[in-house]
Amino acid sequence: MLGLAGIPLGLRFRFLDPSAEAPAAEVGELVVAAYDDPAALVRLAEGADAVTYEFENVPVEAARSVRALPPARALELGQDRLTEKDLFARLGIPTARYGSVADAGLPALVKSRRLGYDGKGQRLLHADEPLGQHELAEELVSFGRELSLVAVRGLNGDTRFWPLAENEHRDGILRVTRAPAPHAPTAAAEELVTRLLDELGYVGVIALELFEAGGRLLANEFAPRVHNTGHWTIDGAETSQFENHLRAILGLPLGSTAARAPSAMVNLIGGTPDVAALLALPGAHVHLYGKDPRPGRKLGHVTLVGAHGDVVDEAIRLADEASC
Amino acid sequence: MLGLAGIPLGLRFRFLDPSAEAPAAEVGELVVAAYDDPAALVRLAEGADAVTYEFENVPVEAARSVRALPPARALELGQDRLTEKDLFARLGIPTARYGSVADAGLPALVKSRRLGYDGKGQRLLHADEPLGQHELAEELVSFGRELSLVAVRGLNGDTRFWPLAENEHRDGILRVTRAPAPHAPTAAAEELVTRLLDELGYVGVIALELFEAGGRLLANEFAPRVHNTGHWTIDGAETSQFENHLRAILGLPLGSTAARAPSAMVNLIGGTPDVAALLALPGAHVHLYGKDPRPGRKLGHVTLVGAHGDVVDEAIRLADEASC
Repeated sequence: MLGLAGIPLGLRFRFLDPSAEAPAAEVGELVVAAYDDPAALVRLAEGADAVTYEFENVPVEAARSVRALPPARALELGQDRLTEKDLFARLGIPTARYGSVADAGLPALVKSRRLGYDGKGQRLLHADEPLGQHELAEELVSFGRELSLVAVRGLNGDTRFWPLAENEHRDGILRVTRAPAPHAPTAAAEELVTRLLDELGYVGVIALELFEAGGRLLANEFAPRVHNTGHWTIDGAETSQFENHLRAILGLPLGSTAARAPSAMVNLIGGTPDVAALLALPGAHVHLYGKDPRPGRKLGHVTLVGAHGDVVDEAIRLADEASC
Repeated sequence: MLGLAGIPLGLRFRFLDPSAEAPAAEVGELVVAAYDDPAALVRLAEGADAVTYEFENVPVEAARSVRALPPARALELGQDRLTEKDLFARLGIPTARYGSVADAGLPALVKSRRLGYDGKGQRLLHADEPLGQHELAEELVSFGRELSLVAVRGLNGDTRFWPLAENEHRDGILRVTRAPAPHAPTAAAEELVTRLLDELGYVGVIALELFEAGGRLLANEFAPRVHNTGHWTIDGAETSQFENHLRAILGLPLGSTAARAPSAMVNLIGGTPDVAALLALPGAHVHLYGKDPRPGRKLGHVTLVGAHGDVVDEAIRLADEASC
């Protein structure tokens, strides 16, 4: 999606991916190697005006060696849930209680500190027990809804925020994003993200996931990259997160982040519905990633722009039916 | 632009172009050969669900041999200005007077019947003189404005019209398109295009160029393909002409052709302005085609969505400054 957004701007792409099947090959040159392969990293960066990443488990040293943007420090602090939470604490960004089981209270959510995503590596604890060396306990927050704020900061410090989005997960995987979120605590959320951007010397797109609980905002995690809860912006916002990320890291002026219309994005997980059925829905825009189906794998998404709730429900039904 | 529109739909592309430098290579496989190379045509169509064209001087026999859509007959009738005008006449679609100089009246515009575009092969005649064998005279119409209607018809006959666009040419080359055109004779124009679609058994995107003269609509020419006066739809309409063309020829449901906001498209001709200067304009979306600069060559376009007139004027100024 970064490639598709950049080609019209006259940009050309080279991608590094461990898989020869990486869909990015459709829109640029593909270097197939491990993310930390020194020769591949040299090849990746050769002649490039900018290097970026869109996967948060890229090795920090690899990102640093090619002077990637967003800065490798954002990647480093975000890769470990403990340093991430400590960063939030240092910046006065509220979170659920975390640390040992005693810190978190019971019941506690135990997460692996590293390499967890889409709910993987999480378990619920009802009694105190010792944590593994690489685990972290978090207070189980009973929240009203999950929000996310996607923002972009340019090389010159110019900062834009897309409207807050409201997210619905299932089995730990993002299922639906609706934006702009109704009755959104916009100013408060933007203020929290600004602290992060300032602290990290940030350039590019960032996403902050938040729980709204009893009128409070609690930060869950941040992602130093374009984010699934920002995919609706391709069709639903004046400038997409992908285009603005590229504009940001290249020092180009940022585009408007205003919403064009209320949008809902539905992930296509594990299987893909009939494309014709999706395209028949009013306001539907289909995005398939060219990946082989696999249970729990995000294979694409459909964004409904300006659509009624029953159209969104129908898209969710089609996605569920094809899902496995 | 067709490739960029189709990849998110899960489509994969193979292109035939006589030039190894064809920008389409960025988004698919490129077969480099003449348009009428039999082996290349076989390779082009191999395994394809559909074959189309986006250049009206493709040989009719080549289009026919691969069962391209839109139907080759549309290409055939449109390639010769005389058969095109005769088709209009047969369908009761008003045109300027045409034929011999006597038919057209003086002063007359003399055009080559075939292979003319962007004002090439045209001259103004102030006295009667014999025409060349492959020439056609047309009444010089003093028109108020030039409009174009871009439409799409699906395999099942479903038909959609984008809003009428108002076009401004210079030296015979399209310079600016504004859409939706104010005070547009929408119903009358749609009725004319419908006659063409019906007659041609049409599938895909079509554009009809019209002169508005003293309250009358005169057809100038039609193009059986995605059209430069429809480029604004990428950013300014709910579904672009490129996406709907693909949906049409593949038998998929068509998307809404409604405008998102008033838009102006400015062609970048002969040279490209500084991209940062263009992106700094509110509502600007930049599309560069990856072509080498050459005088009079369309290298890209910028669409201003929801922008004030002075922003559009500034885009035109930047384009002019870079133009050669």
